[in-house]
Order: sequence, then C-alpha cells, then structure tokens
Amino acid sequence: AKETRAAAPDPQASPIYGVTLPKGYRQWQLIAPAIEAEPLNELRVVLGNTKAIKAYDQGTLPFPDGTVLVKLAWKHVQSPEFAPASIPGAATTVQVMVKDSKKYAATGGWGFGRFIDGKPADLAQHQTCFACHQSLVKNHDYVFTRLAP
Amino acid sequence: AKETRAAAPDPQASPIYGVTLPKGYRQWQLIAPAIEAEPLNELRVVLGNTKAIKAYDQGTLPFPDGTVLVKLAWKHVQSPEFAPASIPGAATTVQVMVKDSKKYAATGGWGFGRFIDGKPADLAQHQTCFACHQSLVKNHDYVFTRLAP
Ligand code: HEC
Ligand code: HEC
Repeated sequence: AKETRAAAPDPQASPIYGVTLPKGYRQWQLIAPAIEAEPLNELRVVLGNTKAIKAYDQGTLPFPDGTVLVKLAWKHVQSPEFAPASIPGAATTVQVMVKDSKKYAATGGWGFGRFIDGKPADLAQHQTCFACHQSLVKNHDYVFTRLAP
Repeated sequence: AKETRAAAPDPQASPIYGVTLPKGYRQWQLIAPAIEAEPLNELRVVLGNTKAIKAYDQGTLPFPDGTVLVKLAWKHVQSPEFAPASIPGAATTVQVMVKDSKKYAATGGWGFGRFIDGKPADLAQHQTCFACHQSLVKNHDYVFTRLAP
C-alpha cells in the first residue's frame, strides 16, 4: 500500500488557520483608515474584496462566506514637505481575515493570518487573534472596522 | 440673430477650475493614507483612477492627462472598542485634482476642487490650492502623496 504522510505545511500560510495573502489585495476597495497610538504608532488601512464591500454596503451581518478583509499597516513619519502631515513609513504587517463558516467554525467562522514581509508570523502570534476579536467585537461578527462615511 | 449669454456655471463644479466630483471615486484604488495634526485633526486617504495608479506603479512623471486624484478626509475619533485606535468620524472634505495639461496650463496642468457635503467650496478656498502645491511639491508634479509601500 502507498505510504501516507502528513502534508507539508504551506510555508506561505498562517499557522493554525492556513490563511495566505490573497492575490491582488492591494487593488481592493477601501473600507476605512485607522491610526494606532503608542507604542505601535501605525497608520492603517482596511481593504475588502468584492464580497466584503457588498456586505458593508448592504449592512449584511454576519459577513458571507468568501468575505476577505485585509489590513495594511505602516509606521508613520512626518511628511518632509508639510510638517503637520504624517505619511506612511515602513510597512509593518499585513493582516488577513477570511470568512469560511465551516472551515473556521471554531473561531467564529474566521481564519486569521498576519504577514511580515510577505511571510506568516509565528504560532504564538496567531493564538492571540481570535481571543481579542472575540472579546471586543463579537457583536459585529468579530470585525472592528466600519465603512468610513 | 440668436442672443448669446454666458453659460450658467455648473453648481456642482468648483470655482476657477470647473472640477466636479468624479463618479465612482469611492471604488478607486488606494494610493496612501495620511494623518493631519492639530488643528485639523484629520484622517485622510488618497485614491486614484486607473491612469493615476498606472502612473504611480510605473513612476511616470509628470502624470498623464486624465489622471484624477481624490483625497477623502474625516475627523478622527477614538475607537469605542479599542482605546489605542482612532477611526474615521465625520467626513470633512473631498478634494480632487484633475490633470489636463491644456485646460489647466496656468496651474501646472492641474484643476482643483474641494467639496463639502458634495458641494464645491467657495472661490477664496480655491485660490489657495495651486499656490500651496506649487510652493511645496513643484518637483513632484505638484502632488504630495507617494504610493504607500
Ligand atoms: C489586542 C487586540 C487585537 C489582537 C490580538 C488582534 N487584533 Fe486584529 N484588530 C484589532 C483592532 C482594534 C482592529 C481595528 C482597528 C485597528 O486597526 O487598530 C483590528 C483589525 C483587524 C483586521 C481588519 C478587520 C477588522 O476586524 O477591523 C484584521 C484583518 C485583523 N485585525 C487581523 C488580525 C490578526 C490576523 C491577528 C492575529 C495575528 C489579530 N488581528 C490580532 C485588535 C486586535
Ligand atoms: C497649505 C497647503 C495646502 C493647501 C492650501 C492645499 N493643499 Fe492639497 N495637499 C496639501 C498636502 C500637505 C497634501 C498631502 C498630505 C495631506 O493630506 O496632508 C495635499 C494633498 C492634496 C490632494 C491629494 C494629492 C496630493 O497632492 O497629495 C489633493 C487632491 C489636494 N491636496 C487638493 C487640494 C485642493 C482642491 C485645494 C484647495 C481647495 C488644496 N489641495 C489646497 C497641502 C495643501
């Protein structure tokens, strides 16, 4: 009989969830920007795929399967051209939430991935995602970001 | 002979430039977010049409005719769910720059429009745009915002 062995984990996929960076996410539509205070000091933007934007536009909750949310984050630096403005500096993390109510039934239907320079962060970091989103925004399908007006 | 009279100005178009809010700009791709400090205290995002994004991606300067840049701005407010985060509050202005090197030859090829609740701001405000962009970013085709990394 053929030998069986565990499939090698995809080195591009997040631990626990197996979430990868979605193709073309930088072209997705804007949901909202945010600022993260000390000590992280980040500028952030959440983008969504077509399903995500449609759900936001129609106020659909919970988000349908296939929804993908991506949060881009950068350090912020003072604009060299206009002192009152702060603009993106170095990119820090790209974070992803993928809705699949069956696959991720144990975590509210969401799979999580945090990427640094395109590579998934470690297991310990991925053990924090659902806990935080669950404790603070369970009543909004575990999603913080609202559509910017 | 037919009487002639000046065309009535479009109430939706900006003074001086005749720039209107482009259709569907909220669906455009992200160029970069920014923070504006006291006293404005705004969160901002610059989006671009297809020509704009292509020019940014390829590093084309000056931007080609047909480029349109839109800056959305909001007051920022503390997230009710996570104190270190600031998120968009009320929308303040939507600002537009349209490249047409012939029509706007006197202002570096750019037409400007500032909109508040969808209506163009007054003449005095539109007398400030080119002066500022010209004095600070003439060497980048009068455009402050760089593509976020
Ligand atoms: C300590 C709390 C906390 C932890 C831990 C956390 N998040 Fe979040 N997350 C937030 C907050 C707050 C926001 C929204 C505002 C912001 O960006 O600060 C957010 C937003 C997001 C978003 C955008 C969608 C939304 O819910 O607004 C994604 C995607 C995301 N987080 C993924 C992750 C991933 C992946 C992990 C773990 C690797 C993680 N988060 C861990 C607090 C947390
Ligand atoms: C006192 C300086 C100043 C004036 C006056 C000004 N701007 Fe700007 N503008 C900026 C700065 C700085 C940025 C980029 C960062 C930011 O948003 O703070 C910017 C960005 C923009 C952008 C995004 C593209 C880019 O250049 O980054 C648009 C569109 C824009 N301004 C339109 C206008 C319009 C329309 C007016 C007049 C009604 C105007 N601006 C007046 C300083 C100015």
